[in-house]
Amino acid sequence: MTKQERGTRTRDALIRSAAGEFHQHGYALATLSAISVGAGVSPGALHFHFENKAAIAEAVEDAACTTLRRTARIAYGHRSNALQNLVDTTHALARLFREDIVVRAGFRLSCSNHCRTELNLRQEWQSCVRQRLAEAADEGLLCGGAVRQQDLARTIVAATIGLVTLSQDSGEWLSPHAVTGLWRTLLPALTAPESLAGLEPEGTPAVIIHSLAPVG
Amino acid sequence: MTKQERGTRTRDALIRSAAGEFHQHGYALATLSAISVGAGVSPGALHFHFENKAAIAEAVEDAACTTLRRTARIAYGHRSNALQNLVDTTHALARLFREDIVVRAGFRLSCSNHCRTELNLRQEWQSCVRQRLAEAADEGLLCGGAVRQQDLARTIVAATIGLVTLSQDSGEWLSPHAVTGLWRTLLPALTAPESLAGLEPEGTPAVIIHSLAPVG
Repeated sequence: MTKQERGTRTRDALIRSAAGEFHQHGYALATLSAISVGAGVSPGALHFHFENKAAIAEAVEDAACTTLRRTARIAYGHRSNALQNLVDTTHALARLFREDIVVRAGFRLSCSNHCRTELNLRQEWQSCVRQRLAEAADEGLLCGGAVRQQDLARTIVAATIGLVTLSQDSGEWLSPHAVTGLWRTLLPALTAPESLAGLEPEGTPAVIIHSLAPVG
Repeated sequence: MTKQERGTRTRDALIRSAAGEFHQHGYALATLSAISVGAGVSPGALHFHFENKAAIAEAVEDAACTTLRRTARIAYGHRSNALQNLVDTTHALARLFREDIVVRAGFRLSCSNHCRTELNLRQEWQSCVRQRLAEAADEGLLCGGAVRQQDLARTIVAATIGLVTLSQDSGEWLSPHAVTGLWRTLLPALTAPESLAGLEPEGTPAVIIHSLAPVG
C-alpha cells in the first residue's frame, strides 16, 4: 500500500467513526477523542486530516451527499419512465439509509442547524421529486393539473422524509416492505388505472441493485 | 395575585423560555442561565422550580403532551366520522405546532434520545392514526382489507411526521394549505368516491377552533 492509499484509508475510517459518533450522540456531544479511538488512529493522525469537529462533520456530510447523489443518478440512468424511476430511487435511497451509517449521519447533519445552511439534502430531494413529477406529466403518466402536481410532490416529499424521521424509532420504517406499502398507497393517487398496471411499487430489482454498485 | 398564582406564572414562563432555548439550540447546548434570563427570573427562582436541565426538559415535554392530547381529545369529542376526525385532528395539531413553541420543542424532545424513552409522541400519534382507521373501517368508510389498512396507516403517519420534520426548513409545510393538500391527495386513496364527497380535506372549521379553545 502506498502512503497515499494509507492516508485515504485513515481518512475514510475517521469519517466512518465520526458518522457513528454523530449519529449516536449528536454533533454537540460527539468528541474528537472518541472519533479517533473509533477509527483506531492517534489524535495526531486525526488532526493531520481534520482541523476540528466542524471539518470532520463537513466531510461526513460531503461523503453522504456524494453517495446519495450518485445513487439517484445511477437509478435515473436506468429509468423506464419517470414514476417508476421515482419508486426505484426511493427504494435505492432507503437501502442506503439502512446500510450506510455515513449516509444516515450526513443526512441528519445536513438538515440540522449546526452546519452549512446552503446544503440541505431535504431541499435537494424536494427538487428531485418535483422534477420527476414534471417528467411524468410530460410522459402523460400523471393525472390532474398543476395544483394537483404540487399537492402530489408535497405529499411524496413529506411521506418519504417522514420514513427517514421515523426510522430513528425503528429501522422497519425504511424496510423494502414499508417503502413498497407507501407506493402501493400513493401510486393510485398519482396515475390512471391503465398506467398503474405497468408500475411496480416494490421497485425494479435490477435498477435498485445497479444503483448501489460501487464506482467501477 | 396569590403567592401560588405567582409561582405558577413563573413556572410557566420558565417552561416557555426553556422551550425557546431547546428549540433554537437543542437540548445539549441550551443553558440554564439563558433560560432564567429569557423568563425574566433569577437563577435562584429557576432552581426553586427545577432541579436541573433534565427536570425542565421533562416539564416542557409534559406540557407539550398535555396540550397535544387535550387537542386530539376535544377534536374527537366533535367528530362526525372517523376519517373527517383524522383530517380535523391533523389540522388542529398542525396549528398547535405553528403557534405553540412549547409544543414544537416538547415534541422534538420527546422524540430525541436525550430524554425518557417510554414517552414518544411519534408512537402515540401512530396509535391514534391506527385507531381512527380501524373506526373508519367499522363505519364502512375505508376501502380495502387489513394489509391495505396497515399501508394506509403507515403512509398517513409518515406523511404527517414528515410535515413536522420539514417545518424546520419552512413553516409553510404545516400551513392549512399544505395540510389540506396532503388530505386532497390521501383521501381518494382511503375511501370510495361516494364517501369522498362528504369529506372536507380543509377540515371542519368549527372543530378546529373548538379543539384549540383554552380549558374553561
